[in-house]
Amino acid sequence: MGVHQHRKMAPASVGVGILSVSTTRSIDDDDSGRWIARQAGKEGHDVRFHQVVTDDTIAIREAALKAIRDHGLQALLVTGGTGITPTDVTIEAIKPLFAKEMTAFGTLFAQLSYEEIDSAAILSRAAAGIIGSTVVFCMPGSKKACKLACKALIFPELGHVVAHIRQ
Amino acid sequence: MGVHQHRKMAPASVGVGILSVSTTRSIDDDDSGRWIARQAGKEGHDVRFHQVVTDDTIAIREAALKAIRDHGLQALLVTGGTGITPTDVTIEAIKPLFAKEMTAFGTLFAQLSYEEIDSAAILSRAAAGIIGSTVVFCMPGSKKACKLACKALIFPELGHVVAHIRQ
Amino acid sequence: MGVHQHRKMAPASVGVGILSVSTTRSIDDDDSGRWIARQAGKEGHDVRFHQVVTDDTIAIREAALKAIRDHGLQALLVTGGTGITPTDVTIEAIKPLFAKEMTAFGTLFAQLSYEEIDSAAILSRAAAGIIGSTVVFCMPGSKKACKLACKALIFPELGHVVAHIRQ
Amino acid sequence: MGVHQHRKMAPASVGVGILSVSTTRSIDDDDSGRWIARQAGKEGHDVRFHQVVTDDTIAIREAALKAIRDHGLQALLVTGGTGITPTDVTIEAIKPLFAKEMTAFGTLFAQLSYEEIDSAAILSRAAAGIIGSTVVFCMPGSKKACKLACKALIFPELGHVVAHIRQ
Amino acid sequence: MGVHQHRKMAPASVGVGILSVSTTRSIDDDDSGRWIARQAGKEGHDVRFHQVVTDDTIAIREAALKAIRDHGLQALLVTGGTGITPTDVTIEAIKPLFAKEMTAFGTLFAQLSYEEIDSAAILSRAAAGIIGSTVVFCMPGSKKACKLACKALIFPELGHVVAHIRQ
Amino acid sequence: MGVHQHRKMAPASVGVGILSVSTTRSIDDDDSGRWIARQAGKEGHDVRFHQVVTDDTIAIREAALKAIRDHGLQALLVTGGTGITPTDVTIEAIKPLFAKEMTAFGTLFAQLSYEEIDSAAILSRAAAGIIGSTVVFCMPGSKKACKLACKALIFPELGHVVAHIRQ
Repeated sequence: MGVHQHRKMAPASVGVGILSVSTTRSIDDDDSGRWIARQAGKEGHDVRFHQVVTDDTIAIREAALKAIRDHGLQALLVTGGTGITPTDVTIEAIKPLFAKEMTAFGTLFAQLSYEEIDSAAILSRAAAGIIGSTVVFCMPGSKKACKLACKALIFPELGHVVAHIRQ
Repeated sequence: MGVHQHRKMAPASVGVGILSVSTTRSIDDDDSGRWIARQAGKEGHDVRFHQVVTDDTIAIREAALKAIRDHGLQALLVTGGTGITPTDVTIEAIKPLFAKEMTAFGTLFAQLSYEEIDSAAILSRAAAGIIGSTVVFCMPGSKKACKLACKALIFPELGHVVAHIRQ
Repeated sequence: MGVHQHRKMAPASVGVGILSVSTTRSIDDDDSGRWIARQAGKEGHDVRFHQVVTDDTIAIREAALKAIRDHGLQALLVTGGTGITPTDVTIEAIKPLFAKEMTAFGTLFAQLSYEEIDSAAILSRAAAGIIGSTVVFCMPGSKKACKLACKALIFPELGHVVAHIRQ
Repeated sequence: MGVHQHRKMAPASVGVGILSVSTTRSIDDDDSGRWIARQAGKEGHDVRFHQVVTDDTIAIREAALKAIRDHGLQALLVTGGTGITPTDVTIEAIKPLFAKEMTAFGTLFAQLSYEEIDSAAILSRAAAGIIGSTVVFCMPGSKKACKLACKALIFPELGHVVAHIRQ
Repeated sequence: MGVHQHRKMAPASVGVGILSVSTTRSIDDDDSGRWIARQAGKEGHDVRFHQVVTDDTIAIREAALKAIRDHGLQALLVTGGTGITPTDVTIEAIKPLFAKEMTAFGTLFAQLSYEEIDSAAILSRAAAGIIGSTVVFCMPGSKKACKLACKALIFPELGHVVAHIRQ
Repeated sequence: MGVHQHRKMAPASVGVGILSVSTTRSIDDDDSGRWIARQAGKEGHDVRFHQVVTDDTIAIREAALKAIRDHGLQALLVTGGTGITPTDVTIEAIKPLFAKEMTAFGTLFAQLSYEEIDSAAILSRAAAGIIGSTVVFCMPGSKKACKLACKALIFPELGHVVAHIRQ
């Protein structure tokens, strides 16, 4: 099936959850998470879940799995904890849960990031993959990085990705 | 430190949770889980959690991680879903979450099982390991297998194991 | 479902293949493979395939996968190449193809082997697991080891294992 | 040794096989595979094998390994099954067989793909690596993607890659 | 914490080691390693270690771990052995030692390399990650590749990376 | 080749090293390590190396690899750090370095250990495998455990194992 046919089958509105990984933020000052939620709403998606979770492997895994199951999410957007400080464990927590990894997302995020912040792009990481029949995207916690990932890569393809996974 | 010193340090009462993996049972007819709970109580442990979860990788992982965090468990005993039918996914769901595997548990369970049911022992599996600072044991769903694992291997060492992990 | 119910469902005759890994043997002097074939026949199984393959990772993988597909095997018995010399690559070739590993088989084989040949048991390896919906057993190449694995562990459970996997 | 010296050593003609992963196509309407075959011939390579295989992990693995061995291939080009629908299993089937992965191929394909189809590039995957002494490239099934991968990355380096692997 | 704050915290001078993987070179004709050392010095870093090691997995691992421990390195720059010939084992030796991988480094190196040498970029590999609290970069052995990796990606971020890891 | 032929080829004297993992011991009060050294000497082996290393993943890996290379060891016996306290990291440090694992050693050690200390056997671990062409055994740090592993499993087979690996 070609890209155009898939595009037609793609749902206009996707059930989305947002998980922000941070030790310091609450929902109220989670600017990045709130921006994602607002933007997802504007794009016509159904934001069913938004939570801040501390940077602990077990807590992140539990929150992600619970969100997916309790809210029947089609997509989970995880922000924060993707860097290389000792407390950055989001990638390590989420990647082993993927049944299938969407490797091109991390690759393209690194490249777009390089265009924006040059060599500092090597300090962060991004990853996407499929857990059950939900797509999960992990991106850095800065609002700038979230805007980049969401506008350039995630939102233009969200319905498309969901249509493929649930085919 | 020798085995005897550790034994002295071992808590007499351990905070225990029970997770039964089954598509057909409810808490009320979860004979194996109820037997474990009763026996753990008799041994002086504090049974804080008992739940039946369906045989789905995501559901099992979420239930295990949630139990560990919400109830501050020192030990989680998982029963069921360890066989080789297509719906047996407990080992596949739990093992990748271990930070450290206690390989001797599976080995000794296989051996004791062989003494009881002979070659049929190759049809099941058991595994133990550490998630965060909680020990997790996975054993088959039959009451006979639970009795074997709990009486011969788990309960005699539970305080001991917890003392080591939290050292 | 209890062990007894499964036993009743177990097919009396299983479609079996034999793959002997050896650089020196041909089918004619493959004593171990021929013994397995004869014994499987006596047990009422349908021996559909018997081949000798050289001790090369790619050749072993291809032969195993081809046998499973071309002959609709329910069980594949692999013998030879399980030791620790540089040319022993059967375990390394087959294990990564398992969707589910039956860990107790290797454990119990080591133990039974220890009872027969004492500490020399550490020089060999055995493994079993599931590829697609076919059970695969890997055992050493000596006739003595094949007899041990087949008589004590494999043949008494073969129908049983197949009934579980294809449930 | 510098790039120029290697280039000189590179064979002008490489023994190539083509494996198309598809449930619906036959050799006759395998436009992508046929284009690759024609193009490989034009480039002076020796196309020794072209087969369509169904999107099943075992079937794909067996076909790839058999092709490599039966036809003494120096390069195997796999097309199709690299997306993210539940039936897309080519990457999952082939990657674990790599002794060495050529990670830059997947990275560069994602980037070139992004230049052509923008964010839709996150929906596909590509990978290359070495099995035995044969290089294997996996690329999407659309003719456009095959042209991109082959013209920009594979054919210009094929002799070069083979010279390195067989050094 | 934003990129700018981290940058302020970044040490101006980093304790650096250089490990060149080669069977033919000695320290004296290790042009690539010597260029890295000189350049690191010019950038104000403290070059504490420079060694040539043969292309053997065990030798590379031992040399890297010893360098990190004996010289209290904050960064180890490994050059050579990243290609795809049978003797290229640097990536295979070092990657399994990473506690955290900095995936964007390999991605961006591939991309920059493509801009310089076009499709020949698929013939090499690069990787970075963290061992203990030391960052390790692996890049090809040609001086051109070292210049590219060091000037475009490594030196501009070295203090920054160290500040993050040791946070 | 049969067990008897291999036995004849087995070297009577093997080049052995001993690595004790401990934070508190020095060579002088390393009772377990000294017992192994004495016993290896009595068995006619050539003890070329004995060192105490702290319980740190990097330190253990470096010491093991350096010992193997500097002293041309045919066998390395590692004692200590195999338990389940947070500082026990020997198994985690060594296992990923194995090219081939000798799984039966861990299995049989667990079983023999169970016969001696009953269920407390689940608190420890043992593992053996091949690094390069050197066999490495990891066993617990108590003298009792070392005696068990060495007398029952390691020394009776040491020449035999070396003959197989270097075949």
